[in-house]
Amino acid sequence: MAGPVDRALRERASAVIPGGMYGHQSASLLPPDYPQFMRGGRGARVWDVDGREYVDLMCSYGPVVLGHQHPAVEAAAAAQAELGDCQNAPGAVMVDLAELLVATVGHADWAMFAKNGTDATTMCCTIARAQTGRGRILVARGAYHGAAPWCTPRPGGTTAADRANLGYFTYNDIGSVRAAAAEAGDDLAGVLVSPFKHDAGYDQELVDPAFARGLRELCDAAGAALILDDVRCGFRLHLGSSWEPIGVAPDLSAWSKAIANGHPLAAVVGSDAFRAGAGRVFVTGSFWFSAAAMAAAVATIRALRAEDAVAVMERVGTAIRDGILGQAAAWDFAVNYTGPVQMPYLTFRGDRGHALISEFAAAVLRRGAYIHPRHNWFVSAAMTDEDVALVLAATDEAFGEMRKRQKEGPNV
Amino acid sequence: MAGPVDRALRERASAVIPGGMYGHQSASLLPPDYPQFMRGGRGARVWDVDGREYVDLMCSYGPVVLGHQHPAVEAAAAAQAELGDCQNAPGAVMVDLAELLVATVGHADWAMFAKNGTDATTMCCTIARAQTGRGRILVARGAYHGAAPWCTPRPGGTTAADRANLGYFTYNDIGSVRAAAAEAGDDLAGVLVSPFKHDAGYDQELVDPAFARGLRELCDAAGAALILDDVRCGFRLHLGSSWEPIGVAPDLSAWSKAIANGHPLAAVVGSDAFRAGAGRVFVTGSFWFSAAAMAAAVATIRALRAEDAVAVMERVGTAIRDGILGQAAAWDFAVNYTGPVQMPYLTFRGDRGHALISEFAAAVLRRGAYIHPRHNWFVSAAMTDEDVALVLAATDEAFGEMRKRQKEGPNV
Repeated sequence: MAGPVDRALRERASAVIPGGMYGHQSASLLPPDYPQFMRGGRGARVWDVDGREYVDLMCSYGPVVLGHQHPAVEAAAAAQAELGDCQNAPGAVMVDLAELLVATVGHADWAMFAKNGTDATTMCCTIARAQTGRGRILVARGAYHGAAPWCTPRPGGTTAADRANLGYFTYNDIGSVRAAAAEAGDDLAGVLVSPFKHDAGYDQELVDPAFARGLRELCDAAGAALILDDVRCGFRLHLGSSWEPIGVAPDLSAWSKAIANGHPLAAVVGSDAFRAGAGRVFVTGSFWFSAAAMAAAVATIRALRAEDAVAVMERVGTAIRDGILGQAAAWDFAVNYTGPVQMPYLTFRGDRGHALISEFAAAVLRRGAYIHPRHNWFVSAAMTDEDVALVLAATDEAFGEMRKRQKEGPNV
Repeated sequence: MAGPVDRALRERASAVIPGGMYGHQSASLLPPDYPQFMRGGRGARVWDVDGREYVDLMCSYGPVVLGHQHPAVEAAAAAQAELGDCQNAPGAVMVDLAELLVATVGHADWAMFAKNGTDATTMCCTIARAQTGRGRILVARGAYHGAAPWCTPRPGGTTAADRANLGYFTYNDIGSVRAAAAEAGDDLAGVLVSPFKHDAGYDQELVDPAFARGLRELCDAAGAALILDDVRCGFRLHLGSSWEPIGVAPDLSAWSKAIANGHPLAAVVGSDAFRAGAGRVFVTGSFWFSAAAMAAAVATIRALRAEDAVAVMERVGTAIRDGILGQAAAWDFAVNYTGPVQMPYLTFRGDRGHALISEFAAAVLRRGAYIHPRHNWFVSAAMTDEDVALVLAATDEAFGEMRKRQKEGPNV
């Protein structure tokens, strides 16, 4: 179970926060061993409020891509913060960052900034509608595109009107997209899609390049926007956008999470064909033009390139995948290890209600590696060989503990 | 006109940002003298990228309430950032902040956090719907409650469905609220209202206490949520919420802007009657639980109290109001100076298209005070008597310049 400091904080939180916590970081979604409150981190190591140390394989659910407290990023953010952050107008760094994104992301001719990933996906839809003069956006069933009423995965407090402009398709099934597009008719404003299928709690599914090309053709034929939701994957798979390797350029894409290594920022980038539409929407926020997070983003993108961070994460992620798959085979567990190695997810075959993966995750956590039983994991470029060794020692022992318990216990 | 550094940045921005800039801080909404890019600030002084200094009467459109670079706030944020900011879970400071808000804000039994004011107003609506099981929210015509599709003041890219659950009333007209509530019938989930009428570009109007009490009675009778949008006013008029002085307690309120003196944070607080509804909505964001902005908020609220900041702003704001009204009379200009003195707005009577206030604002800006021609101004607690004197010297000369030009010119 969580430590005494964590338990005391939970007790206090239960009085002043509904349910004690909410959202994707609520410990109620995790086995009881997980802490609800964290203290800090350096590189690939993090500590909870009870001082327990973990190798971090969640990376704050994505934002931390270069490791916690990356020196160049923190120095850039601190220097800008000392000068000016939230002001009457943006700092010069907003232009630097927009230019850097346009130079880095293949399909980007322009950039806009916001604070949440949900801001960015929502803005993409609004821009697509402003540009096309149409309303319907198609999304994959079960895909996560944020937590505003139009996209939140839980219905509490939402209404039918919030989703009245959505149509649905099945990821990697171009026929289902064509059917949804036909249903939208001349009201098709865009197709919003994640770089690969990363629905929480399910085996991940890489994109079929033919599906991505099919979306591009369909949107071109319909005059609709192809919108890539790169919020979760952006800057972990490829600096030029996650579909750059398969050669499919979206019209608009949404970014957040890793863009500033943990500093709060989101971005929409787009092609010139959608520039006028982007200029016609009114979107803003009190902190959208704050300079410190933008300085952090400039430093993050430069460090990602300088450190060849994607290649580092591929190497580290491959070592972890190969290690875990070898251990699973050795301990005779049938598992699926899916998704890109930088953002993997593990399931046990036939594991109803996530019982086995929850048991495994808790056992791994107790041994000092922070993974997640229902959400894809995230590798950072700060992971050392020692961190990988610690992770693999923890997973090997966790498999062993589960095998031992299964042999002893009456049932699994 | 803006300086050469600013003009060069605008030229670069026009290539990589749609329209060169967007949102509430776009210089396209301001006279050409205004800079589009700012360099930094200290206390009540700010500098643009060309090194021009201004006494700041916009305070970053509200967030800066204690002055720029407040030592205690920046120290708290930096110390927390050095430990941990965006992590796998919130820091202990989230509990400290929730407790502090519950202890500070009269109607608060619990708190939740987000990043944008729009997040907070949207969450209030979602929580009201979750708690009541109804859909319709009433808002005042022309009121600003954020820039998501359901509330953005410009229609580009929005659809009829985005506002399908809204009803409209006239601020300070309880009869119009009753009519809108009658139209909503048994679907009335809540009434969303700002503490006073601060629609951009119009004379401001203080709330009629009888109107506020009427809303409370109507919501009680209907079992609907009274939602106070304290995003713009919060912590400038009264620490216990902006309606604490008139004794009207909302069920839910939305906060952002000044809550962390410029650090990116928003909050929803609510009464126990809406705790269950708050626990049933799924809302979240990658940076909503980041600890540095929460540490800044704790330090901000403590400093507001320690410095008696509201009283300081009242004193400073009164001096500015009295000075400007005296000058206007002396120069024989008929003006309206409206709203609380901490958040005033000036108009010239009969000023079609904001021509006179734009001329005035530009003249004041050139003399080193940053006001706004179409948006209420914000006083901070960092303003010294010297700052006030500089503002009043600038406004006096601006009135004089306008009077001289009107006498010389063919027409106004």
